Amino acid sequence: MERIPLSMGSLRTLPGYVAVSQVVGVACVVITGVWMGHYRGGYAWDGSLNEFNVHPLCMVLGLVFLYGDAVLVYRVFRNESKRSVKILHALLHVMALIISVVGLVAVFDFHATAKIPDMYSLHSWCGMLTFVLFFLQWLLGMGFFVFPWASAQIRNWYLPLHVFFGLLLLVMSVGTCLLGITEKLLFSIKPTYSMFVTEGVLANILGLLLVCFGVLVGYVVTREDFRRPPNPEEEALSVHFKTLSEGEIPSSP
Amino acid sequence: MERIPLSMGSLRTLPGYVAVSQVVGVACVVITGVWMGHYRGGYAWDGSLNEFNVHPLCMVLGLVFLYGDAVLVYRVFRNESKRSVKILHALLHVMALIISVVGLVAVFDFHATAKIPDMYSLHSWCGMLTFVLFFLQWLLGMGFFVFPWASAQIRNWYLPLHVFFGLLLLVMSVGTCLLGITEKLLFSIKPTYSMFVTEGVLANILGLLLVCFGVLVGYVVTREDFRRPPNPEEEALSVHFKTLSEGEIPSSP
Repeated sequence: MERIPLSMGSLRTLPGYVAVSQVVGVACVVITGVWMGHYRGGYAWDGSLNEFNVHPLCMVLGLVFLYGDAVLVYRVFRNESKRSVKILHALLHVMALIISVVGLVAVFDFHATAKIPDMYSLHSWCGMLTFVLFFLQWLLGMGFFVFPWASAQIRNWYLPLHVFFGLLLLVMSVGTCLLGITEKLLFSIKPTYSMFVTEGVLANILGLLLVCFGVLVGYVVTREDFRRPPNPEEEALSVHFKTLSEGEIPSSP
Repeated sequence: MERIPLSMGSLRTLPGYVAVSQVVGVACVVITGVWMGHYRGGYAWDGSLNEFNVHPLCMVLGLVFLYGDAVLVYRVFRNESKRSVKILHALLHVMALIISVVGLVAVFDFHATAKIPDMYSLHSWCGMLTFVLFFLQWLLGMGFFVFPWASAQIRNWYLPLHVFFGLLLLVMSVGTCLLGITEKLLFSIKPTYSMFVTEGVLANILGLLLVCFGVLVGYVVTREDFRRPPNPEEEALSVHFKTLSEGEIPSSP
């Protein structure tokens, strides 16, 4: 008796959390852009440090901001059809994938030109692990939920794993960005970092904002009363199809 | 009809996950100990770099391993009384708090002796934020759940936040450790880090194992069918007390 008004009341705060997450997310992208563009000499595609600068911007835009928003759509579009929201979720992830591939090419290309060894740092290990798992999750998500290849049983088995790894990968993306920030600062302004120079403080603030973005997305998607309400029509349809054809139409994330 | 045997079957895997988490957790503590003890010159309490070496060991032991185990107890001791498990949860957090305070004193003491500025790096910002939130969470947990000061209403409001921030703080602890590993490597072996020297690879492996520990704990505590079964007797008692006295005996995490 108490639960319904409480939950409906709390639902009114959802747009606020989403709005703040978007402001924080855009701020992360802008600050990364300013850091690389203004303090680190701008952008190019010539194997120089200016090509490296494309890397942080693409990773923050692709694997944090767009990725986070792809996770959020199931809470933001609570009353739209599951099918439409799923397509938006998949599209945002396609964009995240393409942009992060550009970001990866930028850093490997820079390393090749500058003859810097690849994949020796903890940042690179965590980043590659995150990217490979993201790509795997993307393939499985496409294969199981977007295309009707998997049986309803496989889909039901995979769904909680998809949700868990979905949030885990956002956390790993944010963590890897923070490792990248620390590396970049110690490579470029080590002698002045401890003097609280503007660039160092800005990059630290970027790190905290990335954490904030991850926390806001994580909070919104794990909060019980923000969950998408089950749609009786969709459920019935899904059960009907499951019984009839073992998974012609997916009932998925 | 399908759900009950599935859930009981999956519950059999719980001890496996917990066992692996403990092996990984102990490995993290041991590798940190070996890294600081063997590669970084060992331990002391004299303001030297050897006093600094106490810092990583205490933080990994306190804010990752013991903290993670304190989170796990509600899943490991599923059939013991909630009161006993709560006391164990609180005791592990007291140990985590004491050990992490020692770790913090070690680094500030080292900085003071070596005249290194405090709190300029992203690692220190994230670490201090994590510690302050941990201490706050600890105070609120003690005040609301261990001692009977809070009303049942306040407890019910705080419980989901306690659970969310509990896992968030483990994630932040692990992330901060990874930032610390990156900083330490770039301060101490920067010229050889890219040559895949043993110390660098060992520290990177430590980073991945810390991530594994966090993932295992996170998976076990968020998996729906690993949840503690509601105890009808405790529930009845708790409701009874709630109705009667608005919170004489807590019904808590």
